[in-house]
Amino acid sequence: MTSLPNYKYGHFLVTSPSPFVAHVEINQPHKLNSFHRDMWLEFGDIFAKLSHDPEVRAVVLSGSGDRAFTAGLDVKAAAGEGPITASEGGSEDIARKATNLRRYIYEFRIASPRWTTVICILHGVSLGLAIDIAVCADIRIAAEGTQLAVKEVDVGLAADIGSLARLPKVVGNSSWVKEVCLTARTFSPQEALAVGFVSQVHPNKQAAVEAGLKMAASIAGKSPVAVQGTKEILNHARDHSIEENLRYTAVWNSAMVLSDDFKKAILAGLTKKKPTFEKL
Amino acid sequence: MTSLPNYKYGHFLVTSPSPFVAHVEINQPHKLNSFHRDMWLEFGDIFAKLSHDPEVRAVVLSGSGDRAFTAGLDVKAAAGEGPITASEGGSEDIARKATNLRRYIYEFRIASPRWTTVICILHGVSLGLAIDIAVCADIRIAAEGTQLAVKEVDVGLAADIGSLARLPKVVGNSSWVKEVCLTARTFSPQEALAVGFVSQVHPNKQAAVEAGLKMAASIAGKSPVAVQGTKEILNHARDHSIEENLRYTAVWNSAMVLSDDFKKAILAGLTKKKPTFEKL
Amino acid sequence: MTSLPNYKYGHFLVTSPSPFVAHVEINQPHKLNSFHRDMWLEFGDIFAKLSHDPEVRAVVLSGSGDRAFTAGLDVKAAAGEGPITASEGGSEDIARKATNLRRYIYEFRIASPRWTTVICILHGVSLGLAIDIAVCADIRIAAEGTQLAVKEVDVGLAADIGSLARLPKVVGNSSWVKEVCLTARTFSPQEALAVGFVSQVHPNKQAAVEAGLKMAASIAGKSPVAVQGTKEILNHARDHSIEENLRYTAVWNSAMVLSDDFKKAILAGLTKKKPTFEKL
Amino acid sequence: MTSLPNYKYGHFLVTSPSPFVAHVEINQPHKLNSFHRDMWLEFGDIFAKLSHDPEVRAVVLSGSGDRAFTAGLDVKAAAGEGPITASEGGSEDIARKATNLRRYIYEFRIASPRWTTVICILHGVSLGLAIDIAVCADIRIAAEGTQLAVKEVDVGLAADIGSLARLPKVVGNSSWVKEVCLTARTFSPQEALAVGFVSQVHPNKQAAVEAGLKMAASIAGKSPVAVQGTKEILNHARDHSIEENLRYTAVWNSAMVLSDDFKKAILAGLTKKKPTFEKL
Amino acid sequence: MTSLPNYKYGHFLVTSPSPFVAHVEINQPHKLNSFHRDMWLEFGDIFAKLSHDPEVRAVVLSGSGDRAFTAGLDVKAAAGEGPITASEGGSEDIARKATNLRRYIYEFRIASPRWTTVICILHGVSLGLAIDIAVCADIRIAAEGTQLAVKEVDVGLAADIGSLARLPKVVGNSSWVKEVCLTARTFSPQEALAVGFVSQVHPNKQAAVEAGLKMAASIAGKSPVAVQGTKEILNHARDHSIEENLRYTAVWNSAMVLSDDFKKAILAGLTKKKPTFEKL
Amino acid sequence: MTSLPNYKYGHFLVTSPSPFVAHVEINQPHKLNSFHRDMWLEFGDIFAKLSHDPEVRAVVLSGSGDRAFTAGLDVKAAAGEGPITASEGGSEDIARKATNLRRYIYEFRIASPRWTTVICILHGVSLGLAIDIAVCADIRIAAEGTQLAVKEVDVGLAADIGSLARLPKVVGNSSWVKEVCLTARTFSPQEALAVGFVSQVHPNKQAAVEAGLKMAASIAGKSPVAVQGTKEILNHARDHSIEENLRYTAVWNSAMVLSDDFKKAILAGLTKKKPTFEKL
Repeated sequence: MTSLPNYKYGHFLVTSPSPFVAHVEINQPHKLNSFHRDMWLEFGDIFAKLSHDPEVRAVVLSGSGDRAFTAGLDVKAAAGEGPITASEGGSEDIARKATNLRRYIYEFRIASPRWTTVICILHGVSLGLAIDIAVCADIRIAAEGTQLAVKEVDVGLAADIGSLARLPKVVGNSSWVKEVCLTARTFSPQEALAVGFVSQVHPNKQAAVEAGLKMAASIAGKSPVAVQGTKEILNHARDHSIEENLRYTAVWNSAMVLSDDFKKAILAGLTKKKPTFEKL
Repeated sequence: MTSLPNYKYGHFLVTSPSPFVAHVEINQPHKLNSFHRDMWLEFGDIFAKLSHDPEVRAVVLSGSGDRAFTAGLDVKAAAGEGPITASEGGSEDIARKATNLRRYIYEFRIASPRWTTVICILHGVSLGLAIDIAVCADIRIAAEGTQLAVKEVDVGLAADIGSLARLPKVVGNSSWVKEVCLTARTFSPQEALAVGFVSQVHPNKQAAVEAGLKMAASIAGKSPVAVQGTKEILNHARDHSIEENLRYTAVWNSAMVLSDDFKKAILAGLTKKKPTFEKL
Repeated sequence: MTSLPNYKYGHFLVTSPSPFVAHVEINQPHKLNSFHRDMWLEFGDIFAKLSHDPEVRAVVLSGSGDRAFTAGLDVKAAAGEGPITASEGGSEDIARKATNLRRYIYEFRIASPRWTTVICILHGVSLGLAIDIAVCADIRIAAEGTQLAVKEVDVGLAADIGSLARLPKVVGNSSWVKEVCLTARTFSPQEALAVGFVSQVHPNKQAAVEAGLKMAASIAGKSPVAVQGTKEILNHARDHSIEENLRYTAVWNSAMVLSDDFKKAILAGLTKKKPTFEKL
Repeated sequence: MTSLPNYKYGHFLVTSPSPFVAHVEINQPHKLNSFHRDMWLEFGDIFAKLSHDPEVRAVVLSGSGDRAFTAGLDVKAAAGEGPITASEGGSEDIARKATNLRRYIYEFRIASPRWTTVICILHGVSLGLAIDIAVCADIRIAAEGTQLAVKEVDVGLAADIGSLARLPKVVGNSSWVKEVCLTARTFSPQEALAVGFVSQVHPNKQAAVEAGLKMAASIAGKSPVAVQGTKEILNHARDHSIEENLRYTAVWNSAMVLSDDFKKAILAGLTKKKPTFEKL
Repeated sequence: MTSLPNYKYGHFLVTSPSPFVAHVEINQPHKLNSFHRDMWLEFGDIFAKLSHDPEVRAVVLSGSGDRAFTAGLDVKAAAGEGPITASEGGSEDIARKATNLRRYIYEFRIASPRWTTVICILHGVSLGLAIDIAVCADIRIAAEGTQLAVKEVDVGLAADIGSLARLPKVVGNSSWVKEVCLTARTFSPQEALAVGFVSQVHPNKQAAVEAGLKMAASIAGKSPVAVQGTKEILNHARDHSIEENLRYTAVWNSAMVLSDDFKKAILAGLTKKKPTFEKL
Repeated sequence: MTSLPNYKYGHFLVTSPSPFVAHVEINQPHKLNSFHRDMWLEFGDIFAKLSHDPEVRAVVLSGSGDRAFTAGLDVKAAAGEGPITASEGGSEDIARKATNLRRYIYEFRIASPRWTTVICILHGVSLGLAIDIAVCADIRIAAEGTQLAVKEVDVGLAADIGSLARLPKVVGNSSWVKEVCLTARTFSPQEALAVGFVSQVHPNKQAAVEAGLKMAASIAGKSPVAVQGTKEILNHARDHSIEENLRYTAVWNSAMVLSDDFKKAILAGLTKKKPTFEKL
């Protein structure tokens, strides 16, 4: 397992366990991998970079250590940083405080990485921000014993980093989504599997990470033209009607099907050899 | 269990089993809680009022008696009231009949209560209108033995009170949705749980109601600013793209995060005390 | 079982096992029912005709023979027909090639039949195009032992006939959808049932087809006004907000509720007789 | 000119100058027809009633007196009523104030009357609320000398009653819309005509009102099925794509074309007689 | 002026006045070019064919003779053909009549030609259907003296062939659109120019046709890749948000910009020579 | 006129002619202010910075010198930079070239500045990119003699920087929009005024710039809470239905109306004094 040279960060480990695969580990295990602001900015940076890196076609994300994927936002640290506190020293005008907060919410959000596939491994303590991050990933895998919850309502907030926006599109069970978001109760990996929040559960963290890395290697071995297109079209489909999506897909593929990858893949199929695809 | 003084209705019981919780019971058990027009208007009234009542933060809805949540519309009663019959005495012109019917359909619909959380307990006979009502609720819980069906196709109609509009957003299994809507076959609580129509099944009505009341009490104990915001944002997410929802959420929360509830909740977390939130 | 006189096709069998029910069988069992271009055009023709045929109210679709529903596109045959090859003899200009391809993609698509209900029986080999077809159907039933996969990414393509557009609306588990589309791995009928891709699994092909025919007969016995309206409104709901759908439904039903089918169905319910509905 | 018996209001005159036509006059000329809260609620009431009154097919709205259509909100009166003031005596919590305000904004809005045609005559002082009201109407006519402005930005607000939502759909000149909304400058009827805010300008109030009444009489003489349908479809078109609108229109008209009005109108055309249409 | 060999139709003249330009004339001048059903089907056929004809890049549409573009639907002929009459001999059931009508409305519509540019010359009598046709075109030019009106409300109908769907997107003056659609009054070419319904007015039919043919020749001389793309993107923009359109455009152009036409056009610009573009 | 200290750029002059107003001049007059890549990136930078600068509330944009606002893209310079050329040395695979181009198109676009008001002064040569820039501004003012054209179709391209996305929302005359985009013909300021592309025309550049600066000063003197909110809501309205916009506006204003600016503005109105607003 080699480290990825361009990804030196203080709070994260980024390695490359196999060709075109990156493994990102949240690396604050002594703090249950909970986030403070600088760490969050680093996190956004890493994924912005990975999303456009031609050397990376699939990413596995996990916490380091056995105890937690992440315990969420480090509330104490946040209290000293956020605009709620900050604005107390700034303008007292409510419109200005609100504007300030709106900007902060935008800044605090991570975008779902658009051009690389992300597999999120949920294990141990996985609360609050853990869900915001997990729903930004493409695929979710859990280890048994994971403790999951959408916690924001317990701190007097409606979640605004992404859980509430994405959960209803990720899980097709609105009764369950409302239940866990309005009560903040914990739920188990088995429950998460049954409702479709994760698509696999493995006996422990190690097995879950391995399953993730194997899946990432499988995806990384395929035509990146095909994989990026498939992801882009699925994401478009989620937010558009079928008619809209079919129109978009026809335009997308009118260029992409001209790729040599198609011929290579067909030939590889006929000759039973593993194809090699040019970087994208 | 005290009754709620402002909710005196002929066909419904409204009580308050715990602070900020209301329990609404459809109270025509000798008729399997089936609806006629006046009863339906009463029903709409109750929920319109509950939706804005600062004394109520969560509502449990069930049928009274053991036999039925509701057997649906009392077809015989409806036949004597509806515009289909009525219009026979009115204009014979088809456009005028159709206009009349369109108005009647609008009137007959209940809105999904926007500002309070509703937990619907399905038990016993739960047909036709039962599903229209259940999909308007936020959370659905069933008792074993419940007899569920989308019955409208059996009376020569496409359901228009809300089942067809909401079921595809409530359940992520379109094959199943088409099956039960096109065949009008009954389905069991276990099947409802498997496909995500309900999020819990309990051994009998009493246990289901108790689970609902407990969940309602849990929700009613949290910041109403957080709960209402969470519900509003989830409902918005259901009908909008992720981008749209994130924009709406940032604007929503820019004011809401300034609430004292946030500070109270954080403090309560640190001091392990139960917070008390001002009415909303 | 009688054949339907107006449906004589080279690659398909179309029979009528019961009143208002058609059974379409893909009839190239020696080639695992894989498709080439002419066959695909025939297929589109059949369903366009069935969709408007007043003698047909529900359709069951299966493969003939025991080995496959369909192995998908016959890639070798396709290689000799498609515009990728063809255009090599035509214009070398990329915009013209891409325009050509866009037209080909549009031509190659089948529309989801709008006015008749389709039940798709998945059995044996069911790869690639099999999924594109299955997601166009209203209801999916599988036989045990079926081998299912979204294969396109393995030939260097993003699927563009319909799988990627429809799968996210058919199944409420986005983690699973991404998994099977990005890895092209096979999945079992049990897995398909658990995630909601099919709504029933039967021990073998024969049992699955019988279940489909019985369901089709049940649907064909109901008011076609009610069945078509229900399907149309559910499809509209899938692609629109709840508000939009309720508005559309009220307009739709303002005429449809005036049908005699309503009175017939009510009367049939009261007299316990099976109603007969006029053709639509 | 007869008064309409069911429309007795303190601040408005409602008369019927010709069959099926109502004329609503804002009747506080000594206060430049400016609005306070009770008056606003009356105003909403009148239009809600007119919208469903089968005796009324077209409405003309003007101010009474020569000086003003309306000078807008009576800011002094509003200061004593609104939630901004009120909430100062209520909760100090920002989220609760904001919630209160959101409810107040909803209450303060008038809906655009859905089922009757409204022609708004702008004359004299026509500021602030005047524009909110005018853009809710279907057709706008101005008298020369009218003083028009979107004033809200001058009182530190973004207009939220409807001007900003509707102006961009009413006028196809976004540079002009931004100009008048961001600077709050007055604009003349000629300018309003050139950009398409009004469709007619007449030399004085009397001529403008007469033109409006004549147009109303013309509309009221036509089939109400055709007029309501035309208005509904145009309003739908404004907010939807062409494809969506064509689908909605086909469903709408499938019942409406069956009206006797079609036959009556055709016959009237052939016999050169004025048709009489049944109430709707 | 040569005739186009593949366009021999009974009620229309199709000629080619210059390279890649077609001129379609409605050729029933003795009947004011009014339409009956067969003629309408021919008309749809011609434009479907022109839309995909690589020999045609721009089309001018006019009426033949001096009296009329078209007087609209030949109501007498229509009365003997339509489903309103027809259904009187068919089913008496309202839902079946309405279904029949819905199908008829769909059939009667023409699609706006997607891949060729259409310039519509309005002259003489231009009523009812004339507007439905004109709003399907890309560009509208009028001759002085043209008599224009949206007539449908005068025959007891809401227009459903396309005027109401497209007029609000074609003209940015909603007051005027409502005025002419609800009153059915005629309007002049000057008024049409002022509100933006046409973009040019010429002194007489001949001058208007010549201006149209000259514009068509100019468009036909440009890169068809650029022209088709521009039209497609503008039509997409009309029905989508700016964000949506920018996403669609980037995907569209990612292939199209690779065309040789770009290089040819740049070179032609530098060398001041007229470029020649390959057929599309 | 003071320069703005934080805006030192090679190709642009940024000055502050009055409080809270910035004047940006494209400063390559000897090259008709035509753009090359570095200049374009600078341009994006400037507006990204201005959009969030609390010292700037309104921006005027013009070209420096008398000859041109901008002649558009410097095609010769672009030919040496772009990915079309570049990719010839890179991958030959079409999908990779297309992907590269898609990224380049995204990079080349400027966002419409979201939080500050931009007034664009069109004068002299204003071609191609000039229109892309002008439609990103909020308000457009032209000098007489300006030479305007959407030129892209003449270089074999569909415009993809923003003209085609925004022009149909900026101008309510689709016939004219298609005309100028499909023919690339020049149009005059008077024509631009008549169709609503600009909202003012002045005799020469100096007068146009002065009118712009005066308008900017007027906007900059108002409450920034009101101005930003008005702009945000108008932009939202452009892309959403009226219902959607009213919902968004109510949420937006629920916090914003609590601003002190409201009270200050009301007080200023009563005391006839000019209010001073805190920075936002």
